[in-house]
Amino acid sequence: MRAFRITEWGKPPQVVDVPVPQPGPGQVLVRVAGCGLCHTDVSLPHMPASVGERLGWRVPFTLGHEVAGRIAVLGDGVTGFAEGDAVALVSPNSCGQCWHCQRGLDSACPNGRAGRGYGRDGGLAEYVLVDGKRFLIPLASLDPVTSGPLTDAGATSYHAVRRALPRIHPGGTVAVIGVGGLGSFAVQFLRLLTAARIVAVDTNPARLPAALSLGAHEAFPSLDGISGADAVLDFVGADDTIAAGLRALRPGGCYGLVGAAGGRLTAPLLGALPKDGEVFTFQGSAITDLHDVISLAATGAIRNEVQRFPFDDIETAYSRLAAGTLDSPRALIVL
Amino acid sequence: MRAFRITEWGKPPQVVDVPVPQPGPGQVLVRVAGCGLCHTDVSLPHMPASVGERLGWRVPFTLGHEVAGRIAVLGDGVTGFAEGDAVALVSPNSCGQCWHCQRGLDSACPNGRAGRGYGRDGGLAEYVLVDGKRFLIPLASLDPVTSGPLTDAGATSYHAVRRALPRIHPGGTVAVIGVGGLGSFAVQFLRLLTAARIVAVDTNPARLPAALSLGAHEAFPSLDGISGADAVLDFVGADDTIAAGLRALRPGGCYGLVGAAGGRLTAPLLGALPKDGEVFTFQGSAITDLHDVISLAATGAIRNEVQRFPFDDIETAYSRLAAGTLDSPRALIVL
Amino acid sequence: MRAFRITEWGKPPQVVDVPVPQPGPGQVLVRVAGCGLCHTDVSLPHMPASVGERLGWRVPFTLGHEVAGRIAVLGDGVTGFAEGDAVALVSPNSCGQCWHCQRGLDSACPNGRAGRGYGRDGGLAEYVLVDGKRFLIPLASLDPVTSGPLTDAGATSYHAVRRALPRIHPGGTVAVIGVGGLGSFAVQFLRLLTAARIVAVDTNPARLPAALSLGAHEAFPSLDGISGADAVLDFVGADDTIAAGLRALRPGGCYGLVGAAGGRLTAPLLGALPKDGEVFTFQGSAITDLHDVISLAATGAIRNEVQRFPFDDIETAYSRLAAGTLDSPRALIVL
Amino acid sequence: MRAFRITEWGKPPQVVDVPVPQPGPGQVLVRVAGCGLCHTDVSLPHMPASVGERLGWRVPFTLGHEVAGRIAVLGDGVTGFAEGDAVALVSPNSCGQCWHCQRGLDSACPNGRAGRGYGRDGGLAEYVLVDGKRFLIPLASLDPVTSGPLTDAGATSYHAVRRALPRIHPGGTVAVIGVGGLGSFAVQFLRLLTAARIVAVDTNPARLPAALSLGAHEAFPSLDGISGADAVLDFVGADDTIAAGLRALRPGGCYGLVGAAGGRLTAPLLGALPKDGEVFTFQGSAITDLHDVISLAATGAIRNEVQRFPFDDIETAYSRLAAGTLDSPRALIVL
Repeated sequence: MRAFRITEWGKPPQVVDVPVPQPGPGQVLVRVAGCGLCHTDVSLPHMPASVGERLGWRVPFTLGHEVAGRIAVLGDGVTGFAEGDAVALVSPNSCGQCWHCQRGLDSACPNGRAGRGYGRDGGLAEYVLVDGKRFLIPLASLDPVTSGPLTDAGATSYHAVRRALPRIHPGGTVAVIGVGGLGSFAVQFLRLLTAARIVAVDTNPARLPAALSLGAHEAFPSLDGISGADAVLDFVGADDTIAAGLRALRPGGCYGLVGAAGGRLTAPLLGALPKDGEVFTFQGSAITDLHDVISLAATGAIRNEVQRFPFDDIETAYSRLAAGTLDSPRALIVL
Repeated sequence: MRAFRITEWGKPPQVVDVPVPQPGPGQVLVRVAGCGLCHTDVSLPHMPASVGERLGWRVPFTLGHEVAGRIAVLGDGVTGFAEGDAVALVSPNSCGQCWHCQRGLDSACPNGRAGRGYGRDGGLAEYVLVDGKRFLIPLASLDPVTSGPLTDAGATSYHAVRRALPRIHPGGTVAVIGVGGLGSFAVQFLRLLTAARIVAVDTNPARLPAALSLGAHEAFPSLDGISGADAVLDFVGADDTIAAGLRALRPGGCYGLVGAAGGRLTAPLLGALPKDGEVFTFQGSAITDLHDVISLAATGAIRNEVQRFPFDDIETAYSRLAAGTLDSPRALIVL
Repeated sequence: MRAFRITEWGKPPQVVDVPVPQPGPGQVLVRVAGCGLCHTDVSLPHMPASVGERLGWRVPFTLGHEVAGRIAVLGDGVTGFAEGDAVALVSPNSCGQCWHCQRGLDSACPNGRAGRGYGRDGGLAEYVLVDGKRFLIPLASLDPVTSGPLTDAGATSYHAVRRALPRIHPGGTVAVIGVGGLGSFAVQFLRLLTAARIVAVDTNPARLPAALSLGAHEAFPSLDGISGADAVLDFVGADDTIAAGLRALRPGGCYGLVGAAGGRLTAPLLGALPKDGEVFTFQGSAITDLHDVISLAATGAIRNEVQRFPFDDIETAYSRLAAGTLDSPRALIVL
Repeated sequence: MRAFRITEWGKPPQVVDVPVPQPGPGQVLVRVAGCGLCHTDVSLPHMPASVGERLGWRVPFTLGHEVAGRIAVLGDGVTGFAEGDAVALVSPNSCGQCWHCQRGLDSACPNGRAGRGYGRDGGLAEYVLVDGKRFLIPLASLDPVTSGPLTDAGATSYHAVRRALPRIHPGGTVAVIGVGGLGSFAVQFLRLLTAARIVAVDTNPARLPAALSLGAHEAFPSLDGISGADAVLDFVGADDTIAAGLRALRPGGCYGLVGAAGGRLTAPLLGALPKDGEVFTFQGSAITDLHDVISLAATGAIRNEVQRFPFDDIETAYSRLAAGTLDSPRALIVL
C-alpha cells in the first residue's frame, strides 16, 4: 500500500510503498477512510534527529494523527467490535496501567511516547494498525471519512475547555485566541457547555466571521479591551498572546496554553500570572475527551468543517495548510 | 499611644505618638496583644511612592499585619462579640459583597486594596481599629499574645496547601521550598492533611532539622534529585527555585508560587510548565483559611514558634528577621 | 399600605392595612414592583402553630417571597446603591458570618430561620424592608415587575442544576420531573449549561409541549423507559417519583429532591439509592445562585413566563395556582 | 488443590478438590499466600439461587475475595510482572473499557458482575487465576501473607473516606459507625487525611479502645449527642444507624452507607436527608483505591491487624467472625 512517510530525520516526507500490516493478538487493523492534516505535521520533517530520539520516536514512520476508518481485521482475542465497524482512532499513546491512565488522565501517561503519526505509523496510508481496543472509539452514525479531525483538533480543544470549565460562570467572559483548526472547535464547545460570553480573537480577519457563525458572541483581531475574563484559551502561544492573555484575566481566572508558537513570559511570575488563578498547558487529549467529542458530534451539535483532498494531493494540502489558505479550518485526505 | 509607622514613602518607619482611634458604627477597637513581623514589612519602606499610590495605599500608616488581641470597644450595632474577647484579625481587605467575596474567594476581591498594616493602620500599636466583624476570628482558648503569626504566615501557607490538595495523593511527594516563617507552617499542614512524602528544601542548613521536627520526611539544601512531585510550594520564588520547582513535578502536578523574590522563567512556557498540571500564584489568604488555621491551632496540632521582643526592640527584631538570625521562624512584638 | 398577610396560624391569609416600614441603619426600603406566587404559600395557612414556632416564624407576616422592585429609601450607611435602582430580593435569610455563609453556602446557614414571606414580612405589599445590601441583587436592564420569580422558582432550580452539573456528561441523559414553575427553569438551565439529552416528565400533558419549547429534547408523562441517567431532578417528590427517579439513574448518577410532596422510600437504602452516586435534597438557594440567574436572564437566554394579576385578584391567582389552571408556569401580582 | 467452595445455592460451603487452573493469554496464575474472611461471605450460602443468577454468579465457585500472594505463572503476552512478584488482587470485576472504567470509576462498571470470590473463583485455595494485569497491585515490601484484607476491608473503607473528604474541614467532626474490619481502617484513613475530630461508634464496647488506639479522638456506644458532623460513614446500615447518622449531620454534610444490614428510612426524604448535603452508598472499591491503600500501607502508616488461621480451620474462623469473637478486626487464612 502507499503511505506518506518520514523516512529520515531532517528530510521531507514522501510517498512510499509499504506492506499492509497484520494484526497480532489484541491488535486491530483499520482501513483508513479519511485523515486530517495538522500544523504539527508541517514541523516534523524539520525536527532534529536528537529530539526525535529523545522522545522515543523511530523513523521511518507514516504521518497522520487524525484518523478514522472501518475495522478491516480483528486480531485474536478482540471482542466487542466487528469488521466493518466505523471507528475513530485515539492517537496519543498511553500504557493503560499507570497511575495516570487508571484515573482517565492518560494524556499525562509517562509511558506513552510515540503516538500514531508521530514516531509510529499514522493514518496517511490505506491501512493502520491499532494496538488495542481502548484506542478505538465507535462512530455510530458518524461518517468515518470526515471524523478524523475530531480526534485531535476536536479532542485537544475539548480537553482545554474541560480544564477551564470550573472557572467559567454564567455571565462571565471567555476568550479563545486563534480560531483555526482547534479554536473553531473550542468556540463551539464553550457555547454548548457554558453560559459565558465567548470572545474569539484572531489576527487573520478572514476567520472572525466564521467564529461568530460557530457561536462566538464577539470576534476581534486582538485581546485589547478584554479584561476580567474567567478563562483565556490560547491556541497560538506566542510572546504577545501569552502576555495579553494573562493580562485579560480576572483574579482567580485561568489561562490555558495549547499553541506551540514557543512564547515566553518576560515578567516575574508573581504579578504576571493570574492571582489565585490557574495556568495550565498541555498537548493532546485523554481518551475520555475523544469519547465526549464523538458523543457531541453524534448529536449534530458541532460543525466539523473540512476541505477534502485526494491522497495524490497531500503535498498541496499541506502547502495550503502552512500558508493559511485553506477554505475550511481543517484539511482532510480522503483514502 | 505609640505606633511604629511609615510616615513617608521611601523613609524608614519610626515610633510616633498617635491618638487612640474610636470605633464608629459597625467597627471594633482591639487592644493588640501581640503582632508578628513579616519579611514584606522590611521591603515596604523602600517602595516607591508611585507604587504605593497605584495600590491605593495611604501614608502615614502603622505597620504590622499579623495581629491578635482582645476586643476593647464595640461600635454601635456590632453583635455576637463582647469586650474582652480574644480575637485574631484578618489583615487582607475585601468588600464582602462582590462575586469573589460571596464565594469565600475574598483573597481575590478586586475592591480590597490596602490591608491592615500595609496602606492602612496595622498592629504595631497599642490599639487597632477593625472595620467590621467579618475581620474578627474568635480565638477561643488560644493565647492572643502569640496568635498573630497564624493570620499571615499561617493562613497564607494554608491557602497554598489547600490549593494543592486535590493534586496530592497518598504515597506521592510534595516539596516545600523555603521553610522559614511560612514554609514551616506549610510543612505542618501538609503532614496533617495528606499522606504524601513531604520534602523540605532550604539553602539555610540551620532550618532543615526544624523542618524535620515539624513533620517533613526529608530535608535537603536543594531540589536536586526530586522528581515526579505532585506539588511544589515555593515560598522563595527566585529564578532558580522556579526553574527547579517546575522541573520536579509529575505531569498533572502543581506548582504554587508564594515567595516574592521576583523570579522569572526564561524558557518557553510550553514545555517548561507542568504538562496538564497547574501553576498558581497569590499572596495573602481568604478569611476561611484563617478560620481553618485557628481551628487547627486550637486542637494543639500545629506549632507556632515565635521569638518575643518588647515594643522597644522592634528595630532589633526586624534586623534579625532581615538577617535570618532569629531563634524561631517568626518574630513577635508583645504589646 | 395594604398587605396580604397571615395574621394567625391556621387561618387563611387576608388583606390588611399596615404602616409603611422605615429602614434603620444598614437597612433598605424597597417599593415592590411585582411578586410571584409559589405553591408553598398555599400550604402555609394550614401549618400548625407548633411547626411555625419551631421554625422561628412569627405571625402576623406578609406573604410573598418572589420579590423585585425599586429602592425607595436607603438606611444610614448603605453604599453602592441609589434610590430608584431596580433590584431583586434574596428571600432566604442567612447570617453572612458563619462557616457556611463565608463559603457561599448560605442556603445551609443554620442561623437563617424565617425568610422574606415566610415568618417575616414578604412582598405582597407596596413596600418591603430589606435587612442589608447582601440581600439586594441589581437588575440592570431587567424589568423589576416580572423579575420576582427569578428569585425563587429561578434560583432554586438553578441551585439544583448546579449541584448536578459535575455528574452530567456530554451525550448523557438528565430527567426533570415536574415542569411547572421550577422545572421550567431547570430545563432551560440544563440546556444552557450541559450537552446532555434533557427529558421532561410531567403527569400534566398540557405542560409537555411547553417543556419542549424551552429546550427539553423529549417530554413524557412518566419516567418509564428512561434508564442510565446522569441526573434526575425531582420537583415533585412523591413516593412514586422518588422510586422511579432513583431507578432511572446510572451508577454514579445523582438524584436531587426539591419537591415537597412528602415522598418516602420504602426499600432498604443500600440497593435503592444510586450505587456510588449522590442523593441530595434542599429547598431555597444561595445568594450566588440568584446572581447567576440574574446574569443569565440579563443575556436574554432564559424565558420567565408569568401570568399577571392585579393586587385585588390575589385570591383568584392563588386558586388557579392551586388548581393547576394558570396560563403560564408562574402567577405574578403586579404592585 | 483444595478449595473452599460453594457448590450449590443454599448449601454450606465445603472443602473440595479441584484442578490447578492454567493461565491463558493475558491471564496470570497466582499462588495465594493469605486470604481474609469477610462478613458478606457468611451470608452467601443463604443467597437464593434466583438472586445469584440475576447477579450473573455461577456455582460452583471458590470463596475468598481478600487475596494476596505471589505470581506463579504469567500467561502469554503479560509484561511488567515477573514470577515470584508479591501482589494483591483486585476482587471487584470490571471491563476496563466502559465510560466508568476509563475515568477510574470502575467500581461502578455495569459490566463487572461476578467478582473474585463471589460468583467466580476466589482465594480460599492454593492458586487463583487472574484475568489481566490491571487486577494485580504490586506489593513491593509488604508481606503477601497478610495483605489480603487491604483489598476489601481496606479499599472499601478508603473509597468511603475518599468520597467524604471534600466535605470534611479542619476542626469538623466525622463519625464512623461500626469499627470492625472496615471501620477500623476508616478511622485510620480519616486520621491520616483529615484534621477533623474522629468519633468512633460501636455497640460492641470491646471495640472502642481499639478504635481510640487507631486514631479516633473519641469512642462511644452510640451517636447520641453527636451533631453538626461533616460526615458520617455507616459500616452497619441498620434502621437505627441510618436514622441516627442522618440526624447527626450539619447542613451540607454527607452520609455514606456501606454496611449491608438492610436498613430503611421511614421518614419522608425531604427533611430527613441532610439539607444541601450528600447521601451516597456503594459496596466495593475502585482499583485506584487499592493502589492508594497499598501505598499507605507501604509507608507503615496504617495497621492491618489480623488473626491467622490455617486452612483447616476455615470453618472455625468463619464461626468466630460471625459471632464477633475474633481477637483482631479481621480473620485471615494462611495458605
